[in-house]
Amino acid sequence: MAEVVTLGEAMVRLSPPHFQRIEQARSFDVEIGGAELNTAVGLARLGHTVAWVSVLPANPLGRLIARRVREAGVEDRWIRFTDEGRCGLYFLEFGAAPRASALLYDRKDSAFSRLRPGQLEWERILAGARWFHVSGITAALSEGTAAVVAEALQAARRSQVQISFDLNYRAKLWDRDTAARVLGSLLPFCHVLFTSEADAEFLFGIRGESFDEVAAGLRQRFGVATVVGSRREAELVWRQRLAVLGADEHQVEESNWYEVEIVDRLGAGDAMAAGVIHGLLAGSLQQAVRYGAAMAALKHTIVGDLPWIDPDDVEAVLRGDSLRIRR
Amino acid sequence: MAEVVTLGEAMVRLSPPHFQRIEQARSFDVEIGGAELNTAVGLARLGHTVAWVSVLPANPLGRLIARRVREAGVEDRWIRFTDEGRCGLYFLEFGAAPRASALLYDRKDSAFSRLRPGQLEWERILAGARWFHVSGITAALSEGTAAVVAEALQAARRSQVQISFDLNYRAKLWDRDTAARVLGSLLPFCHVLFTSEADAEFLFGIRGESFDEVAAGLRQRFGVATVVGSRREAELVWRQRLAVLGADEHQVEESNWYEVEIVDRLGAGDAMAAGVIHGLLAGSLQQAVRYGAAMAALKHTIVGDLPWIDPDDVEAVLRGDSLRIRR
Amino acid sequence: MAEVVTLGEAMVRLSPPHFQRIEQARSFDVEIGGAELNTAVGLARLGHTVAWVSVLPANPLGRLIARRVREAGVEDRWIRFTDEGRCGLYFLEFGAAPRASALLYDRKDSAFSRLRPGQLEWERILAGARWFHVSGITAALSEGTAAVVAEALQAARRSQVQISFDLNYRAKLWDRDTAARVLGSLLPFCHVLFTSEADAEFLFGIRGESFDEVAAGLRQRFGVATVVGSRREAELVWRQRLAVLGADEHQVEESNWYEVEIVDRLGAGDAMAAGVIHGLLAGSLQQAVRYGAAMAALKHTIVGDLPWIDPDDVEAVLRGDSLRIRR
Amino acid sequence: MAEVVTLGEAMVRLSPPHFQRIEQARSFDVEIGGAELNTAVGLARLGHTVAWVSVLPANPLGRLIARRVREAGVEDRWIRFTDEGRCGLYFLEFGAAPRASALLYDRKDSAFSRLRPGQLEWERILAGARWFHVSGITAALSEGTAAVVAEALQAARRSQVQISFDLNYRAKLWDRDTAARVLGSLLPFCHVLFTSEADAEFLFGIRGESFDEVAAGLRQRFGVATVVGSRREAELVWRQRLAVLGADEHQVEESNWYEVEIVDRLGAGDAMAAGVIHGLLAGSLQQAVRYGAAMAALKHTIVGDLPWIDPDDVEAVLRGDSLRIRR
Amino acid sequence: MAEVVTLGEAMVRLSPPHFQRIEQARSFDVEIGGAELNTAVGLARLGHTVAWVSVLPANPLGRLIARRVREAGVEDRWIRFTDEGRCGLYFLEFGAAPRASALLYDRKDSAFSRLRPGQLEWERILAGARWFHVSGITAALSEGTAAVVAEALQAARRSQVQISFDLNYRAKLWDRDTAARVLGSLLPFCHVLFTSEADAEFLFGIRGESFDEVAAGLRQRFGVATVVGSRREAELVWRQRLAVLGADEHQVEESNWYEVEIVDRLGAGDAMAAGVIHGLLAGSLQQAVRYGAAMAALKHTIVGDLPWIDPDDVEAVLRGDSLRIRR
Amino acid sequence: MAEVVTLGEAMVRLSPPHFQRIEQARSFDVEIGGAELNTAVGLARLGHTVAWVSVLPANPLGRLIARRVREAGVEDRWIRFTDEGRCGLYFLEFGAAPRASALLYDRKDSAFSRLRPGQLEWERILAGARWFHVSGITAALSEGTAAVVAEALQAARRSQVQISFDLNYRAKLWDRDTAARVLGSLLPFCHVLFTSEADAEFLFGIRGESFDEVAAGLRQRFGVATVVGSRREAELVWRQRLAVLGADEHQVEESNWYEVEIVDRLGAGDAMAAGVIHGLLAGSLQQAVRYGAAMAALKHTIVGDLPWIDPDDVEAVLRGDSLRIRR
Repeated sequence: MAEVVTLGEAMVRLSPPHFQRIEQARSFDVEIGGAELNTAVGLARLGHTVAWVSVLPANPLGRLIARRVREAGVEDRWIRFTDEGRCGLYFLEFGAAPRASALLYDRKDSAFSRLRPGQLEWERILAGARWFHVSGITAALSEGTAAVVAEALQAARRSQVQISFDLNYRAKLWDRDTAARVLGSLLPFCHVLFTSEADAEFLFGIRGESFDEVAAGLRQRFGVATVVGSRREAELVWRQRLAVLGADEHQVEESNWYEVEIVDRLGAGDAMAAGVIHGLLAGSLQQAVRYGAAMAALKHTIVGDLPWIDPDDVEAVLRGDSLRIRR
Repeated sequence: MAEVVTLGEAMVRLSPPHFQRIEQARSFDVEIGGAELNTAVGLARLGHTVAWVSVLPANPLGRLIARRVREAGVEDRWIRFTDEGRCGLYFLEFGAAPRASALLYDRKDSAFSRLRPGQLEWERILAGARWFHVSGITAALSEGTAAVVAEALQAARRSQVQISFDLNYRAKLWDRDTAARVLGSLLPFCHVLFTSEADAEFLFGIRGESFDEVAAGLRQRFGVATVVGSRREAELVWRQRLAVLGADEHQVEESNWYEVEIVDRLGAGDAMAAGVIHGLLAGSLQQAVRYGAAMAALKHTIVGDLPWIDPDDVEAVLRGDSLRIRR
Repeated sequence: MAEVVTLGEAMVRLSPPHFQRIEQARSFDVEIGGAELNTAVGLARLGHTVAWVSVLPANPLGRLIARRVREAGVEDRWIRFTDEGRCGLYFLEFGAAPRASALLYDRKDSAFSRLRPGQLEWERILAGARWFHVSGITAALSEGTAAVVAEALQAARRSQVQISFDLNYRAKLWDRDTAARVLGSLLPFCHVLFTSEADAEFLFGIRGESFDEVAAGLRQRFGVATVVGSRREAELVWRQRLAVLGADEHQVEESNWYEVEIVDRLGAGDAMAAGVIHGLLAGSLQQAVRYGAAMAALKHTIVGDLPWIDPDDVEAVLRGDSLRIRR
Repeated sequence: MAEVVTLGEAMVRLSPPHFQRIEQARSFDVEIGGAELNTAVGLARLGHTVAWVSVLPANPLGRLIARRVREAGVEDRWIRFTDEGRCGLYFLEFGAAPRASALLYDRKDSAFSRLRPGQLEWERILAGARWFHVSGITAALSEGTAAVVAEALQAARRSQVQISFDLNYRAKLWDRDTAARVLGSLLPFCHVLFTSEADAEFLFGIRGESFDEVAAGLRQRFGVATVVGSRREAELVWRQRLAVLGADEHQVEESNWYEVEIVDRLGAGDAMAAGVIHGLLAGSLQQAVRYGAAMAALKHTIVGDLPWIDPDDVEAVLRGDSLRIRR
Repeated sequence: MAEVVTLGEAMVRLSPPHFQRIEQARSFDVEIGGAELNTAVGLARLGHTVAWVSVLPANPLGRLIARRVREAGVEDRWIRFTDEGRCGLYFLEFGAAPRASALLYDRKDSAFSRLRPGQLEWERILAGARWFHVSGITAALSEGTAAVVAEALQAARRSQVQISFDLNYRAKLWDRDTAARVLGSLLPFCHVLFTSEADAEFLFGIRGESFDEVAAGLRQRFGVATVVGSRREAELVWRQRLAVLGADEHQVEESNWYEVEIVDRLGAGDAMAAGVIHGLLAGSLQQAVRYGAAMAALKHTIVGDLPWIDPDDVEAVLRGDSLRIRR
Repeated sequence: MAEVVTLGEAMVRLSPPHFQRIEQARSFDVEIGGAELNTAVGLARLGHTVAWVSVLPANPLGRLIARRVREAGVEDRWIRFTDEGRCGLYFLEFGAAPRASALLYDRKDSAFSRLRPGQLEWERILAGARWFHVSGITAALSEGTAAVVAEALQAARRSQVQISFDLNYRAKLWDRDTAARVLGSLLPFCHVLFTSEADAEFLFGIRGESFDEVAAGLRQRFGVATVVGSRREAELVWRQRLAVLGADEHQVEESNWYEVEIVDRLGAGDAMAAGVIHGLLAGSLQQAVRYGAAMAALKHTIVGDLPWIDPDDVEAVLRGDSLRIRR
C-alpha cells in the first residue's frame, strides 16, 4: 500500500562515456529512466512510499530495470512481466556548447506499449494512495496505453486520489492534433498540471503575457487546480540558471533561482515534479515550488535519470549552504 | 570491384564486461557482428578485396556499424542506408563452466529484415567477383531477405561466381519445416556448404557414420561440390580443442587439432569459413581445411565477432610455433 | 511475511580489478557480501520470499548495502539503521596459481557487531516463516551478536521454524575454545548443519573414515537431523572440481561432480546453502545436494559474493547441457 | 578519385584520462591525429570524397592509424607502408585553468619524416581533384618532406587544383629563419592561406591594425587570394568564445561568435579549415567563414583530434538552435 | 636528512568516478591524502628534500600509502609500521552546483591515532632540518597525537627549526572548547600560522575589519610571526577565484587573483601551505603568498589530494601565461 | 649505500586491455619494465636494499618511470636525467592459445642507449654493495652501453662485489656474431650466469645431454662459478609448469615444479634472477633455486613486469599452501 502511485514506461539508457559520439563508442554506460519512474524515485528519496506501475519484458533487460527500480527504493509489486514486446532502449549523447546533448530512441514495440485496459487492477493498486502521477508520454505510446491512462485517471478520481499530469509533449511520438485531442480529454480528470508555456500554446493555443495568465487559461479550460512550470536562463550545456513557478486560484509562487553545473540533465523535470508533489502533499504551493526547484537543480548534478538525491541535499540547497566541501 | 562479396545483416553487440550478468551491468562493451560480415572481415585480413552488401538504418547506430566495417578493411559501397526499420542489437553474457555464454537477440524489425528483391543491383555488385558467400541466417530473417538470397544466388550463378553457403540454422528465427524448405531450395545453387552434422540431420534427415558419409549425402541431395564442418572436444567455456573437416568428390581432408584458450568464441565459425574460402580460392581443399582450422582457432582468442587476425598469426599457427612471447 | 529469514552482517567489498595487488590498486570494484545475505539472495533467485535481518550504519555506505540488498530481490524491512558503529569493509585480492586469492578484513567496530539481544522483534520477524538460517560468523562477531543468535534460535524453535546453521569457523574472529563453546551451545537448536570435516574435527574432535561417519558423529553430539558438506578436487585458483554431500538418519546423498571455471569463488558455500535449503524446503535430501552443488558450481562463475543465478541456469546445469553458446 | 586531397603525417595520441598528469597515468586513451588528416576527416564528414596521402610504418601502430582513417570515412589508398622509421606519437595532458593543456611530442625519426620527392605519384593522386590542402607542419618535419610539399604544390598547380595552406608554425620543429625561408617559397603556389596574425608577424614581419590589413599584406607578399584566421576571447581551458575571419580582394567576412564548452580543443583549427574549404568549394567566402566557425566551435566538443561532426550539427549551430536536449 | 619535516596521518581516499553518489558506486578511484603529507609532496615537487613522519598499519593498505608517498618523492624512512590500529579511510563524493562535494570519514581507531609520545626520535628526525610543519588535525585525532605534536614542537624549537601550523579546525573531530584549549597551547611554539578568519573567530574570538587586523590579533595572542590565509570568490563547485594573503609585523602581502577551473579541490589549502613555506624558506613573504596562491590555484586542477605540480607549472602561472595548449 | 646494484634500461610499457589487438586499442594500460629493474624490484620486495642505475629522459615519461621505481621500493639516486634521447617504449599484446603474446619495441634512440663510459661513478655507486647484476640486453643496446657494462664489471671486480649476468639474447637487438663476441668478453668477469640452454648453444656452441653438462661447459669456457636456468612444460599462454635448475662445481639443484596460471608472464625470468640472488646472498644454491622458482612462478600471477611479490607469498609457495582463499 503506497502513498503515491505512478504509471509509465521505463527504458534502458545507453550512453557513451565522456562526451563521445555514439559512432565513436566502444562502451555504453547503462542507466534506466522513464518520466514517471523518475518522479517515483524522487518521491521515494524524499521519504514517501511509492509504487510504480509498469510492464516489462520477461528477459534480462526487463529484470535489469526491475532490479534497479527496487534498488532505488520504489515498490515493484505492480510491474507486469510479459513475453510480448521488447525492452525499450534509448541512446544518449552528452554534448557541450554549441552542441546540444541528443537522444536516439529505440522504443518501438515495447512490452509497455502493448498494455491494454483491463490488464491492471486499479482498485487494488490505488488502495490507500493519496496521489497518482502520470505523463503525456504514457498516453502517447499507443492507443492502448492512452486508454489505460484514462482508465487509471477515472479509478483515481473514484478513489479520491489527487492526480498530477506532466504534459511532456514529444513530437516524435505523436502529432499535434492527436496529442491535443487525447491530452485534452485526460486533463479534466487532473488536479495538477505540469507544462511548459510553449506546449500550452502549441497544443491548446493558450498563451499569455505571464506564466500566471497561461496558468489561468489552463485552469479555466481544463478545470485543473494548479499549474506548474519552470524557467531557465543563460542556458549552455554544462551550466544554466533555473527557477520553478506554480499558480493556483489564490496565488502565484516563484522559487529562488539556482545556478546549476550540469552533470546530466535527463529527468530534471521529473525530479521537479517529485519536489512539487512533495510540497503539495504537505499542503503548500510555496513549499511545492521550493522543493520542485531544489529537486530540479540537484537532479542536474546526478548521473542517470533517477534522482539519487537525499533530503539533506535538498535542505542544504533550500538553506543556501556554501558550496565548499561538506566534511 | 571486389574479389569476394558477402550478403547479410550486422548488429551492434552489447556485452557486460568481465563475466557480469546482463542484470548486473553498469556498462556494455560495444562490438559489431554478423555472420557474413565476420567472414568478409576474415577474408580482408587474409589479403582479399571484399565487399559486404547490407542495409543499415540512417542513424548513429547504423553509421557506427558502417564505420567499423570500413575500419575492418571491408568495402562499404554496397551498404544501403534507410529510414525504415531499426538497428539490430544483441546482448552477450560471457560465461564460465558450468554456465555457458548466452545471447539475447533484439533484432526484430531491423532495417535489413525489410530488404526486398529488386533493391540491390546484383550485376554491378558481382562484377569481377570470384566468390559469393551468404548464410542461412540471412534467409531466415524475413520472406523478403529469403527472396533476396535467391536473387543473389541466381545472379552469382549467371556471373560464374563460386558460391558458399553456411547453413547456420537458428531455431529462434524460424521453425524446422520452413527452414528445410527454404534452405533446400537455395542449396542447389551453391558450390560449397558449411554445416554441422547435427543440422544436416535435423533439417534434412541426412545422417551417416562419419563426416564423409554425411557430406556425401549432402552432395548427392543438393549437388554441392564441397562440404565443410568442424569438430570440437573437451569443450569448456574457456578451453576446447577443435579441428576442421572438408569433403568433396575426391577426398576428405582433416586439419590438425588445436588447443584453444577462449577469449571470445563469437564468430569462430565465420572465421573458419573465411579460412576455407581463402584455401579454396587458392584451389586446394587441403589448404582450405588448414586455413579454416587456423582461423577458427585464432578467432577464439580475439575480442569481438570480427576476426582481427593477421596472416602472420595464421602462419605461426600452421607452423606450430611455440607459445612463448613473440619478441 | 517471508518464507525464509536469515540473520547476519554484510560488508562492502573492495577489490582491485584484473588480478592487481591491493598495493598496486588505482581503483577498487565495489560489491557487497555477507554469508547469510548471500544465502538469502540465492534463495530469492530460486523463487522464495526472503528477509534478511541486519544492522547497518546510517550513512551512504550503509545505504549502498541496503539498496543492493533490495536490488538483489531480498526484503529489507528488518534492517536497522544506527548511528553507532561503522560499515564493515573487506578487501579482496584475486590470485592465480600458485598465489591464492586473499582477503583483508576491516570490520571491527561495525554497526552490526554492536547488536544486542532485545533489539530485534523475533516474533514479528519470524511470523509465517518456514526456515531460518544463520552462520557461525554472526556468533563470532561479538558477545552481543552471539547472544542475538541464541535469542533468534530459541524464537525460531518456538515458532516451529526449521533452522540451518553454517559452522563457518573463522580463526581471525575467535579462538578455538570460545568458538567450540559458543557454537556447541547453539547447534542443539538446529536442524541442518553445514560444515567441513576439518572444522568438525578442529572444533569438536569429531572425525571419521568418511563423510557419513563425521555426519553421524555430529548428529549424535548435537542432535541435528542433517549434515551437509562439500568436496573439492584438482583445486587451482581458476579451476576446480566440486561435489556436495548430505547425510541424515536415513541416507547419504552425493551430487554429481562439476568442472568449474572460477570467476569469483566468494560466497560459493553460501550459494550451496541456498540450494540445499531450496531442496530441503521441497522435502528431499537428494534434491538438496543436487541444487546445492549446482548453485555452488554456478556461483564460481558470477562476479561478486551475491549469487546472480537464475533457475534456468540451475536447470541447465542439472540437465548437463552443453557449454556452447546459449542462443 | 577524390574531390579533395590532403598530405601530412598522423600520429598516435596518448592521453591520461580525466585530467591526470602523464606522471600519474595508469592508462592512456588512444586517439589519432595529424593536421591535414583532421581536415580531411572534417571534409569527409561534410560530404566530400577525400584522400589522405601519407606514410606509415608497417607495424600494428601504423595499421591502427590506417584503420581509423578508414573508419573516419577518408580514402586510404595513397598511404604508403614502409619498414623504415617509426610511428610518431604524442602525449596529451588535459588541463584546467590556470594550468594549460600540454603536449609532449615523440615523433622523431617517423616513417613519414623519411618521405622523399619522387616517391608519390602526384599526377595519379590529384587526378580529378578540386582541392589540395597541406600545412606548414609537413614542410617542417624534414628536408625531404619540405621538398615533397613543393613537389605536390607544383603538381597541383599543373592540375588546376585549388591549394590551401595552413601556416601552423611550430617552434619545436624548426627555427624562425628556416621556417620563414621554406614557407616563403611555398606560399606563392597557394590560393588560400590559414594563419594567425601572430605567426604572420613573427615569420614575415607583416602586421596591421586589423585582420584586414594583415591579410592584405599577406596577399600582396605571396599572391594568395584569400587569408583566413580566427579570434578567441575569454579564453579559459574549459571555455572560450571564438569567431572566424576571412579576407580576399573584395571583402572581409566575419562569422558569428560562439560560446564554446571545451571537451578537447585539439584539431579545432584543422576543423575550421575543413569548414572554410567546404564553403569555398561552394564558392562563397561568407559561407566559408560561417562553416569554418561552426566546425571550429563544434570540434571543441568532440573527443579526439578528428572532427566527428555531422552536417546536422553544423546546421543546428548555424541556425542558433537551443542547447536543450535534441530528442 | 631532510630540509623539511612534516607530521601527520594519511588515509586512503575512495571516490566514485564521474560525479556518482557513493550509493551508486560500482567502483571507487583510489588516492591517498593527509594534510601534512599533501604539504610535504608540494614541497618535494618544488625541489626540497622532505620527510613525512607518520604511522601506518602493517598491511597492504598501509603499504599502498607508503609506496605512493615514495612515488610522490617524499622520504619514507620515518614511517612506523604497526600491527595496532587500522588504516584510515575517507570517501569523497564529487559534486556540482548546487550540490557541494562531500566527505565521509572512516578514520576511527587508525594506527596513527594510537601514536604516543616517546615513540618517535625527534632529535634524529629533525637533525639538519630547516622547517617543521603540522596541522590542527593531527592534534585533534587523539590525546596521544596531541601530545606528540607538543613533543615535536618543543623538539623543533630546541633544534632551531622554523615551525608552521595549519589550524584546520574540523568540527567532526573535536569540540570548540577542547580545540581552543589544545590549539591555544600549541600555537605559542609556532612561527607561521595558516588559518581562516572564520576559524580565528570561532575558536579564539579574534576578529577584525580586515585580514590584517585578524592577523595582528593572532600574532599578539600567540606570538606567531606570520599569519597566512586565503580568499575565495564566485565560488561554485567547478569554478572559483582565489587569492592568498600573508601578514607579519612589517607588511601585508596579497597575491594575484586566479580564475580556477576545479578538477579536485582536496588538498588545495595544503598545497598553498607548501607554496608559502617555499617562499618563506627563500626569505620573502611576498614570494610566499605568490607561490602559495599559484600552488593553491594549480592544485584545483590536479586529480587526488597530492599536488602533482611542477615548478614549470608554477612559473607559468606566475608569469600569467596564456591558457592555449603548451606545445 | 645499497646491498645490491643493478644496471639497465627501463621502458614504458603500453598494452591494450583484455586481450585486444594493438590495432583495436582505444586505451593502453601503462606499466614500466626493464630486465635489471625487474630484478632490482624483486630483491627489494624480498627485503634487500637495492639501487638501480640508469638514464632517463628529463620529461614526464622519464619522471613517470623514476616515480614508479621509487614506488616499487628501489633507490633512485643513481638515475641520470638527460635532455638527449627519448623514452623507450614497448607495446604488449596479450594472447591466448594458439596465439602467443607479442611485443612491439619502440626503443631506438633512447636516453639510456646514449650512455657512455665515464658518465657513471662506479666506485661511489658500488661502495658497500655485495652484489651487482646486469643482463645481455644492456650490452646489446649500443656500443656505448656495452662499454659501460664492461666498465661496471671491472669496477665490481675491483670492489669485491659478486656479479651475476643474465644472458638474455635478443635477436632483434643484435646479430649472433656481435652478441657472441661482446658477451664472450663480459662473462669472464661474472660469478653467476643465467641462461637458457638454447642460447648457450646458439651463441657459444655449448651443448650437452643435460643441464648439468651445458652448465659445466659454460663454467669451463667462461670461468663462471654458477649457472642457472629454467624448465617449462605443458606451455599454453594461460597455463604452464615450470622449475629452476642451478649448477656449480659441487652440485646440481632442481626446484619443485609449479603449476602456473598466467596473468602476465613478462619479467618472470627477472623475478627468478631475484630469487636466485636472494638465495645465493644467503649462501645456498639449494635455496637459490627454490626462491628462484617460487619468484618465477609467482611473477606469472602479477600484473606488469615488476614483481609485486611479498615474502609471505614466497613462503606460502615454498610450503605448498592450499590455493583456497587466504582469510
